[in-house]
This record gives sequence, structure tokens and C-alpha cells, in this order.
Amino acid sequence: MDFASHFQSQLDALKAEGNYRTFADLERRCGAFPRANRHGDTVEEVTVWCSNDYLGMGQHPEVVASMIETVRACGTGAGGTRNIGGNSVQHRALEAELADLHGKEAALLFTSGYVSNWAALSTLGARIPNAVILSDEKNHASMIEGVRHSRADKVIWKHNDWRDLDRKLNAVGDRPKIVAFESVYSMDGDIAPIREIVEVCEAHGALSYIDEVHAVGMYGDHGGGVSEREGLAHRIDVIEGTLGKAFGCVGGYITGTAALVDFVRSFASGFIFTTALPPAVAAAATTSIRHLKVSGEERARQKANVAKVRARLDRAGIPHMANESHIIPVMIGDPVKCRMISDILMADWGIYVQPINYPTVPKGTERLRITPGPHHTDADIDHLIAALTALWSRCAISHAVA
Amino acid sequence: MDFASHFQSQLDALKAEGNYRTFADLERRCGAFPRANRHGDTVEEVTVWCSNDYLGMGQHPEVVASMIETVRACGTGAGGTRNIGGNSVQHRALEAELADLHGKEAALLFTSGYVSNWAALSTLGARIPNAVILSDEKNHASMIEGVRHSRADKVIWKHNDWRDLDRKLNAVGDRPKIVAFESVYSMDGDIAPIREIVEVCEAHGALSYIDEVHAVGMYGDHGGGVSEREGLAHRIDVIEGTLGKAFGCVGGYITGTAALVDFVRSFASGFIFTTALPPAVAAAATTSIRHLKVSGEERARQKANVAKVRARLDRAGIPHMANESHIIPVMIGDPVKCRMISDILMADWGIYVQPINYPTVPKGTERLRITPGPHHTDADIDHLIAALTALWSRCAISHAVA
Repeated sequence: MDFASHFQSQLDALKAEGNYRTFADLERRCGAFPRANRHGDTVEEVTVWCSNDYLGMGQHPEVVASMIETVRACGTGAGGTRNIGGNSVQHRALEAELADLHGKEAALLFTSGYVSNWAALSTLGARIPNAVILSDEKNHASMIEGVRHSRADKVIWKHNDWRDLDRKLNAVGDRPKIVAFESVYSMDGDIAPIREIVEVCEAHGALSYIDEVHAVGMYGDHGGGVSEREGLAHRIDVIEGTLGKAFGCVGGYITGTAALVDFVRSFASGFIFTTALPPAVAAAATTSIRHLKVSGEERARQKANVAKVRARLDRAGIPHMANESHIIPVMIGDPVKCRMISDILMADWGIYVQPINYPTVPKGTERLRITPGPHHTDADIDHLIAALTALWSRCAISHAVA
Repeated sequence: MDFASHFQSQLDALKAEGNYRTFADLERRCGAFPRANRHGDTVEEVTVWCSNDYLGMGQHPEVVASMIETVRACGTGAGGTRNIGGNSVQHRALEAELADLHGKEAALLFTSGYVSNWAALSTLGARIPNAVILSDEKNHASMIEGVRHSRADKVIWKHNDWRDLDRKLNAVGDRPKIVAFESVYSMDGDIAPIREIVEVCEAHGALSYIDEVHAVGMYGDHGGGVSEREGLAHRIDVIEGTLGKAFGCVGGYITGTAALVDFVRSFASGFIFTTALPPAVAAAATTSIRHLKVSGEERARQKANVAKVRARLDRAGIPHMANESHIIPVMIGDPVKCRMISDILMADWGIYVQPINYPTVPKGTERLRITPGPHHTDADIDHLIAALTALWSRCAISHAVA
């Protein structure tokens, strides 16, 4: 086996189809977000329009101070797994805060949102005898891999289609059922009909598992996500979330009953056999959650900016996908054009919007994914719209938008 | 399905067999390590003897300063995946440092060592057509789950037995072969016969993959691990390591040829779809690696302390497993007794050594795993030996040690 040729030919194929990824080399600037320095042949200032630090909490003075204080007091790492020397009072405090955020008995912290989905779903699917997992067809890669890893039987239901879910739950019959779905889908920005899904789950005695990673901190009066906003959190068995997006840090979690959380804590390989997050990360996340529990200001300003950008896109005749969330997908439909537009925005306009290509979205649905935040100014919005308008007036691109 | 009863009965079973885990609530004290505060009904000072912050780098002034400076400059989080807004100059610098550490063309950072093994092995196994993975029978959970997730054919070879590996590679015939093993096995502390394994891999044209998580920073003149010490790094295809143990931070990585690393970067779900580590973590890890590349002092002091503890255990007649590493397993062989001894050490002596029970080690091989570091004093060692001697003189415990 010539491994080197195999790797190279696979990479060449990616390049040929326009799906080879190159990363923008950024230097984040605390206090200046969404401004950042972009390092290339020279260092240029750019405005970031595609961050998942949705509310700019990664530069919030209280959050920054909390992380710095805890590094100074406790050092840089945890020093072990949660079980072997790595558990700290900061992890406990964060888990208590998360349980409270979602009105649940308990919470469990993981090293990332990806790992929380993968580890929780694979553990539930594998360790509930004869379980079937019913998974929304647009679920995130981390859920798909978790379901796959569990080796439980899997049934895919049509995206956001609770009637299809109902039919499929009926067909499963008398077996333990787990229903996995998201509140806000990250790439289309659409929001699930949570109430209907929950009612279907209840009718069938299914365990409901919701991924709220693109919603925590941002929806609900206390940032508890769409399930809080809809008054449904208490009817959902597992609420999963992240500390890496609106909360501005890194890490993931699940919340649920004490027994369920203890079960995952006790059996999930991806929880047990990994070094705990640094206490300083846990402390910063706790501070961020506490702030967003009482402050609605960031959410309000973000919402206003999202509405402004949408209205301005409409006025400029630039098509974008309608949805009820904070995510604005501007569809391009071709990986090469998507990368080209992104490159021009960066080089000529100092605007950073990463092209979203396969495998993050299906082939043919390539897009720019714009995420306005509370710190974008009116001038930033003017500049973004001017850039897109200029680009859209070029023939090649207007053809690209089917 | 009564999910709640199922969870509870599984937890009850764990408790009945003595394998239910309770975490020690620590408060790390930067500058005082291995001293920490343990929070219970009261707050007590304890000396940690089971940390994987092997060299105390988590409190090294340069590492702490680097993390604080970068939080101040860049904020608390990365704000996105590496591809979508989360890539920073700090990640690039760290990957360059890691490639250099192991003398490889490239490196790729993951959110944890667990994820690096899981994602790299599952991607290699799944995306090299017809591949077979030959896995040492004592490989870490993260490698086992990675192999499992790849769905590639798997062959288990006898622990550290290169002749068995050779036979099994022969039996596989003309297919792409990946050989996965560790340098230092974390629970027995034994070191693999790397030269023989590498020679067998070369003879069969197999891709070699070594996990050096318990060795990086600690073995080799520059902390490149056992593969550096043995002058074998250039003959191993993939060297995997962690930033969460001797380097005192969090995160994991692989190093290898540019094509192999780019291949994993381009296809691994667990790399692509997850928020990047905070730039501040990357900066701190880079500082730690750079320090340990030139400073041998921490390694020398740790080695001396390991030798002291072993000699003192021998003199006290306390049996421990022989090995050539820094890990000292004191065998107990029963989960309940192991927990009991640990509890007494904590309550009566202020010594924290977590009991190591199933599933971290096989049932019947429960143990205390002692990891002396460069910052343990002679007085700490005296105190540890006095405590163990007192405990071993009690009948119940001396019987426990078969």
C-alpha cells in the first residue's frame, strides 16, 4: 500500500471539486471584536461576519477577568481526568449553573459540544437495551457519529417533520426510543417545531434529546435556549449545549435528571477517559452564563442587527434564506464561486465570511453564512451591503445564484 | 420503557461492585502544586500524588503568563471551528512547534488527546480502502473507540509482543495495515519495545501509529517522548500526543507527513465539526513545549523523585509494579479496599491518590497509581511512605495485596 499516494490523490480530488479547505489565519483582538487581524503576506484588519462567538462574550470584561483570575489562582490545566485528580470546584460550579440554566436536576460537562453529543448519544444508545434512536435527517455530525457509534438501530425522520416522526415512532413498536433533534439548525438557521416534537415524544414514551448549541445564551429570557423561550424545557429529557458559541469559551454539556446525568457520567468513554477542561475555562464560562442570565442587552442588540442586515439585503436584492433565527444564509450553490466571493470580500473589502462548502452543507447548497452580532456597527452593515451589492452586480456571481 | 429505573439500576449495580466513582473536589493552587485545597464539609489542604500534570507545568510562571497575556489580547474563546472563524495564529504556531518537536512535516491540533486518537484512527481506518488496524491489546479507550468507529477490520495483538504482531501482520496478507500502540502505558507504566515494533511495521509496509501521551515532555532530550529518546521518531508514521499532561494545558494532536496530516484535517469529522481550542490555551501550550525543549531540570527532578519513592516503598516492603517509567502502581486488587485506602489517605493523612478501579483497569487489578513529580519534597515523600506503612501494617490491607 502506497499510503502517501492515497492521501495525496484524495486531497487532489477535494481540490478538483473546490472543496479543499484553507483556514483564514486570524488574530483575535479582545476589545475590538468583530475586528480581527488577518495574517497573510501582510497583516490586515478585517471585520468578522461569520463568528459563532455570537454575542461577543469572548471579549466581555467580566468573562476575560474571570479566566485571568482563575489562571493566576489555579494554573493553566486541570491535571487529570475528572475522576483522577482533574475535578475542581470550578467544574462543579459550572455544572450547577448549567443545571439551573435549563431547570434540570443535574448537568455534565464535556470537553466540547461535539464530544457531549457523541458521548451522550453513543452511551444512551448502547446502554439502553434494544434502544432505537430516531434522528432528524439534518442533525449535526456529532449526533450522527454518536448514533452510529452506539450501534443502536437508527431511524431517520424527515427534517422538522413531527408527523413523520410520529409515524416512525409508531412503526418502531414497543422498544425504548430516543428522539434526537436540534432547536436551531446551524446552516439553514431554521428552528424546529419543538412543542409538536415533544408532544409526539410524550405520546410514545420516547426519551427526547435536544441540541441547543446555536441557541443557548441567545434565546429565552435567561439564555436557556429556544426550549426556555417556548416554556418547554421541563418536558425535554436531555438538553445539550455548548460553551463555545454564545458563551464565548469552549466545552459542551448535557443536562437532565440526576439519574440520567449520573448514568452518562458513569459509563461514557468520552467523558471518563479524557483530561478535564482547565478550571479557568470553567470559571469563565460560569461568569458568561451568569451574565447572560440577567442581561438581555446583548441579545436585543444582536436581534436588531440581524433584522437590519436582512432588511438591507432585501433592499439590495440579494437573496437569502428566510428563517426565524440569527443566522443569515446567502446561497451561492457552487463551491468554487463560494470560495471566490469569500476571497474577494476578504481581499478587496476587509470582510471575512468563510465559504461554507461540503461536507458542512450538501453539495449544490454552498453558501455564505452571515452572523450579525451586537458589536457590528451601522457602518459595518453599510460596508457589508456595499460589498455584496458590488459583487452581485457582477455577472458571474448573479448567475451563480440560482 | 422506564428509563429512570434503568439508569438507577445500572448505577446501583456499579455501587454494589464498588465501581461507582466519586470525584474529589479540588481547588488547584497555582504556585503551591502539588498542594491543593480539597473541598468537603470543610476545606483541607492535601498533597496530590496522582496528577498527570507530571512536571507541574500547569503552574509554570512562563506558561501561566502566556495564557493570561493571550486571554487579555485575544479573549477567552476561538469563536468557531478551525475552518469557520476559529483559526488563529496561535493554533498555527502551536502546530509548527509540535511538528518540530517530533521532527515531522506537520501537526494537527484536536480538542483533546482522546479526540485526536478517536478522530485520527477512525478516519485512517475508514478512508484507507480495505484497511486492517492491528491494535495492542492494552491500548487506551480513545484508540479502541477510534478503531471501532472506523469499522475497519481489527486485529488485537498481545501486549508489547512484537513477535505476535509479526505473525498477525503475516496472516493479514496483502492489505493496507495500520499498527496502533502506545509508548508508555498509563496504568502499568510499562514501555513498549518500540524499535522491534517499528522494524516489524517496516518489514510489512504497515503504517505505524504511536500514542505518546504519557511520554511527551518527559522523555527524550527535548521532551519528544520515548520515540525521541530511542532515536526512532523519524521511522514512525504518526506520533500522537497530548497537551493536557506534562505540558500542563489541554488538547491533543497528531504529527506526521504533510499529506497524512492534511488528509486527517480534511476528512476527520471530530476535527472539522468542533470549536477550536481557545487561542490562549494554544499559546500556553506552545510556551510549555518550548520550555521543556530546552530545560531538562523538571525531567531530572521528577526522575530523581520517582527513584526515591520506589526505593522507599521497597524498604517499607510495600509491593509495587516494576516498570521503567515514572508511574508507580501499588496494587490492591479489590475496588472496595482500593477506595477505602484512598479515603483513609485523604482523611487521615491529607494525601490524595485516587483509587483506580474498573473500567480504567481490569477488575481484580485495582490499584493506587502514584506519580511523583519534580515539586514533591523529601518531606512529602517521608509523609507518603509513613502513611502507606501505617496502612500496610493493618491486617485487612496486607491481605488485600496478593
